[in-house]
Amino acid sequence: MARTGIATVCLSGTLEDRLDAAAAAGFDTVEIFEADLIASPRSPEQIRDHIAGLGLTISLYQPFRDAEGAPPQRFAATLRRLRAKLELMDRLGAGTLLICSSVAPDTIVDNDLAADQLRELAELAAGHGIRIAYEALAWGRHISTWEHSWDLVRRADHPALGLCLDSFHVLSRTDRFAGIADLPGDRIFFVQLADAPRLDMDVLQWSRHHRLFPLQGGLDLAGFTRTVLASGYAGPLSLEVFNDVFRQADPHRTAVDARRSLIALQDAVDTTQPAGSAPAGGAARKAESRLTGIAFAELGVGDDTDTGPQLETLLTALGFTHTGQHRSKPVQLWEQNTARILLNSGVHESAIHAFALESTDPEAAARRAAHLLAAPLPRRRRQSEADLTAIAAPDGTEIFFCRTAPPDDSVPAAETRTKPLGDSAPALETRTAPLGQHGWLDDFLPTGETPAPPTGVTAIDHLSLAQPFDRYDEAALFYRTVLGLIGDEASEFAAPFGLIRTLAIRDPERRVRITLSVPVLRRGDWAPAVRHPQHLTLATDDLPRTASALRSAGVPLLAIPGNYYDDLDARLTLDPPLRTRIRDLGAMYDEDAHGHYLQLFTPVIGGRIFLEIVQRVGGYRGYGFVNDPVRMAAHREQRLHAHSPR
Amino acid sequence: MARTGIATVCLSGTLEDRLDAAAAAGFDTVEIFEADLIASPRSPEQIRDHIAGLGLTISLYQPFRDAEGAPPQRFAATLRRLRAKLELMDRLGAGTLLICSSVAPDTIVDNDLAADQLRELAELAAGHGIRIAYEALAWGRHISTWEHSWDLVRRADHPALGLCLDSFHVLSRTDRFAGIADLPGDRIFFVQLADAPRLDMDVLQWSRHHRLFPLQGGLDLAGFTRTVLASGYAGPLSLEVFNDVFRQADPHRTAVDARRSLIALQDAVDTTQPAGSAPAGGAARKAESRLTGIAFAELGVGDDTDTGPQLETLLTALGFTHTGQHRSKPVQLWEQNTARILLNSGVHESAIHAFALESTDPEAAARRAAHLLAAPLPRRRRQSEADLTAIAAPDGTEIFFCRTAPPDDSVPAAETRTKPLGDSAPALETRTAPLGQHGWLDDFLPTGETPAPPTGVTAIDHLSLAQPFDRYDEAALFYRTVLGLIGDEASEFAAPFGLIRTLAIRDPERRVRITLSVPVLRRGDWAPAVRHPQHLTLATDDLPRTASALRSAGVPLLAIPGNYYDDLDARLTLDPPLRTRIRDLGAMYDEDAHGHYLQLFTPVIGGRIFLEIVQRVGGYRGYGFVNDPVRMAAHREQRLHAHSPR
Repeated sequence: MARTGIATVCLSGTLEDRLDAAAAAGFDTVEIFEADLIASPRSPEQIRDHIAGLGLTISLYQPFRDAEGAPPQRFAATLRRLRAKLELMDRLGAGTLLICSSVAPDTIVDNDLAADQLRELAELAAGHGIRIAYEALAWGRHISTWEHSWDLVRRADHPALGLCLDSFHVLSRTDRFAGIADLPGDRIFFVQLADAPRLDMDVLQWSRHHRLFPLQGGLDLAGFTRTVLASGYAGPLSLEVFNDVFRQADPHRTAVDARRSLIALQDAVDTTQPAGSAPAGGAARKAESRLTGIAFAELGVGDDTDTGPQLETLLTALGFTHTGQHRSKPVQLWEQNTARILLNSGVHESAIHAFALESTDPEAAARRAAHLLAAPLPRRRRQSEADLTAIAAPDGTEIFFCRTAPPDDSVPAAETRTKPLGDSAPALETRTAPLGQHGWLDDFLPTGETPAPPTGVTAIDHLSLAQPFDRYDEAALFYRTVLGLIGDEASEFAAPFGLIRTLAIRDPERRVRITLSVPVLRRGDWAPAVRHPQHLTLATDDLPRTASALRSAGVPLLAIPGNYYDDLDARLTLDPPLRTRIRDLGAMYDEDAHGHYLQLFTPVIGGRIFLEIVQRVGGYRGYGFVNDPVRMAAHREQRLHAHSPR
Repeated sequence: MARTGIATVCLSGTLEDRLDAAAAAGFDTVEIFEADLIASPRSPEQIRDHIAGLGLTISLYQPFRDAEGAPPQRFAATLRRLRAKLELMDRLGAGTLLICSSVAPDTIVDNDLAADQLRELAELAAGHGIRIAYEALAWGRHISTWEHSWDLVRRADHPALGLCLDSFHVLSRTDRFAGIADLPGDRIFFVQLADAPRLDMDVLQWSRHHRLFPLQGGLDLAGFTRTVLASGYAGPLSLEVFNDVFRQADPHRTAVDARRSLIALQDAVDTTQPAGSAPAGGAARKAESRLTGIAFAELGVGDDTDTGPQLETLLTALGFTHTGQHRSKPVQLWEQNTARILLNSGVHESAIHAFALESTDPEAAARRAAHLLAAPLPRRRRQSEADLTAIAAPDGTEIFFCRTAPPDDSVPAAETRTKPLGDSAPALETRTAPLGQHGWLDDFLPTGETPAPPTGVTAIDHLSLAQPFDRYDEAALFYRTVLGLIGDEASEFAAPFGLIRTLAIRDPERRVRITLSVPVLRRGDWAPAVRHPQHLTLATDDLPRTASALRSAGVPLLAIPGNYYDDLDARLTLDPPLRTRIRDLGAMYDEDAHGHYLQLFTPVIGGRIFLEIVQRVGGYRGYGFVNDPVRMAAHREQRLHAHSPR
């Protein structure tokens, strides 16, 4: 595997903050971005020693601007400037200098002159034992393509002059980079990697504000990296990402995110075909284990004494039965068909504290997570308790891997620890693992409670987790790579208090679905909205029945405005019975090419969480994102009434 | 003056929040953005009554999309949809519907068909007494220019069909809009106004995220508005601004900002020549009063008991004399030449609490401020105290207008209340106003303290005020319009904890200079930076002398890293004596076409404020923005040492 590097400019804080974070995340080497060094109170020698003490090397000093194509007088000043920087690099112990193509308005368009000047600069560098890596900026005045930069390097023909290839500069301009594989690998002196979302905007602004780590954007980083490595390039793969959010975020977290991206990229390079596309993760690794469903969701009850009873009332009304009590912790197990919800009153915040994923091989899933730098959580092992492997998601949510069902039905279903919950709930009986064999359910003592009448709820449909503003891109990459999920549907919509971005991710078979959301801008003082709202969506095969059960139990549902239904009628020509049913249920509606979707919501409980009950009819594949603005306004209205009667 | 309107989509919160804010800011009318209505729990009748109760009217319901050019089957659905929306508008009491040009992929390119369909839609609307205003979206599938939309309206030739002209859609595509003046004004049914910064990006994204209120961006809003009014258009001028920040900000503040923009726009339209450019404010109004300098800056001492003594020590070392004590408040007056600093120990936060501007006519300046909706502050009038007119800036800073000097030297200098401060300080003696005539200095009892030896400080050079994230665009417009200042230099740079934007504004003669700054993204938890830092920059005509006085007094100055000087030497070929002087002083350096700039900084005092001492040599006009990143890192380093010794 190639050495991994990161430019100091990717991270936030003082130079020392950035270096410490890079080392802690396990990078091999760093690029020193000049502005970060200039702002440091430490001398170059002190910085050199600090970096060595961290076990890092300096692979690049950058950038040196406006070098080639200079008129004679400016070129004399350029030589003088280069001498000063070479002396600095001697003190710093940096062996390679990045020169990026000139943007100066007075740049002379003359390839021979530019090559001559680059040769002269390289000769000067060679006197210090320093190499120059020449890079074409995508917005270079005259040299802006990798082919052109290679042409100059070839013309200059000096052993101390080679290429720097930056994935953003190449891929923002062209998809034609296959020729890089044919370059002599030892003339590529440095490779910088950055991804970016596909944006139609000025390329300089795109580069300065919107770069992302590999596999977080829309550029073909796997293809680019594979091509570069095919040339024989053996230097580091180094990240150079200018991103407004990362510049403000905890550098230790960002550095781990960065290194995860390189590991996932390496996996993608290793396991995909040269001609194929490059999914995050890698097919071989994915084959080790598969996620087959959501085993349970654990709701923290929080410190508000009202929340626990509210949740219990709600679950009972929904047809869940409190089937088990944890042997050692204040955790209740509630079940209905394959939907299992834990209520943990030992957690101080009411939130989706944890969730567990069914895996065909939990140990392999955990190894994969560790390989991708997921933070391990202390295991919940106690004497007679199941050993559940757990990791922390970027927002702190705990994720468990478990195997409730026997893998691939190869192990016959053994004794079950709960009685069937009624005619409509046979799934639990057959999918429960043998006792003592990954039997996390064994941690729960049966309560013997009489099963509640089922209401049609069949499973957990998906989880919706608002992400901390700083961690959205990290979370998306985390879920895709660590869990091997794929990006599904993305949306941006106007909530009452600002724009929101949402991304759904899922496994290929749609058995594990998670939606992530984040405000487009970090929320400020004026935003009387729920902070980091979360919800748990339950699937029902009979929404009227579920709704009726809730109403019978006196559980309030979120009131959807009449204006919503009037607009629905204006937009769509629904069959009259369906139209009537939607209004009568107080449901929201969406449709796609496959089918339609009916949604009910509870009010927000405990300040942050609510439940959604959905019915997918005819294979609808979405998440009802189109209804989110109205739903959020309705939640706002509900909270206004709850807190200050009008 | 035209009626002023605002679209609900400009503001944040529930529909009620938005309507209340629009009414409170004094708008005449609102556009109801459909999504805001759909999300409201109130019925159309309730919304109508609420709006009427606020004294507002509804001038537009919008948008109705994908109408013209539809294939037959879709057009049938469009008619059905229009009927539903017309019924809604009947209930709402809205008389004009916006139809924006179709973006549907199946739109048929056929002007006759489109005109026929628009005529049919208009006929349907006419049956409800409703008018249709047809608008060309800049990204419309087929119709995307105002000329083309007018062509369709003309072809359709229906009295209930007219044009909607939106400044963004027009100006984002073309500077050729003079022909609008020749349209029949009564066929323009509606005019929407939005400004925007000049950005090179996809126009839809530009429009959705980056619109601004008039005069906050780079489009020719004054020219556009003048042209529209020249057609005879007599309807409202209505704001339709999609802005990520405004969507999150307190709607009451945003609504005032919005209405201020329309007032300033009206002034600009009234006072500029049709062929000329359109500066904010308006020449006639500007002539009423001129700002001629910064009379004083008032520093809040804050609650930390160390801060007062630190500031007093610093001012003494800088050669200031504590010349006066306020008659009734815990406020000290410190003076040196024309630089006057008040230390107010009655203020709980150490900050630039207030500043006063010299005006040739303070009353006229106050009238202008009131005209532009600046929030008046309770006057500081007490029995024998001067009547200082004061307003609040968007960040709460108090701004006073005063006249220390006689206007235009027409009133001879009368008795002065302080002795000359030495040979180098004659200005105060001649510029002080007569007692009892705008004599704010009379509020201060002379202390009789022996004047400190002067150190070269001559004046307050400028003020630097970090702005709350939500209020940056408002602040820039406020200072330009309310104070009649002009935009000067803008910058964006990478501070240790994120990108920062800076804008300098000034009067034409560079006697009042203020720089505003804001992070590119709202700061989060990881940002151990000073929150809303401020500084006061003093001009000296002899920086070595001032620096020497500070060092003699043992006052610490901010330590500038050696790497900064090495880089300066690499970049610039300075005269050896100057080069030596800069290093010896520990100063920072900048140069422009006019001269150069030397800067010294104090550490941060009291958590938020610091002083800068600068010398402008040879007419340098900038603010040293290029040095801000290193200076900010140095302040970070200083605070690290101050708080946790390493």
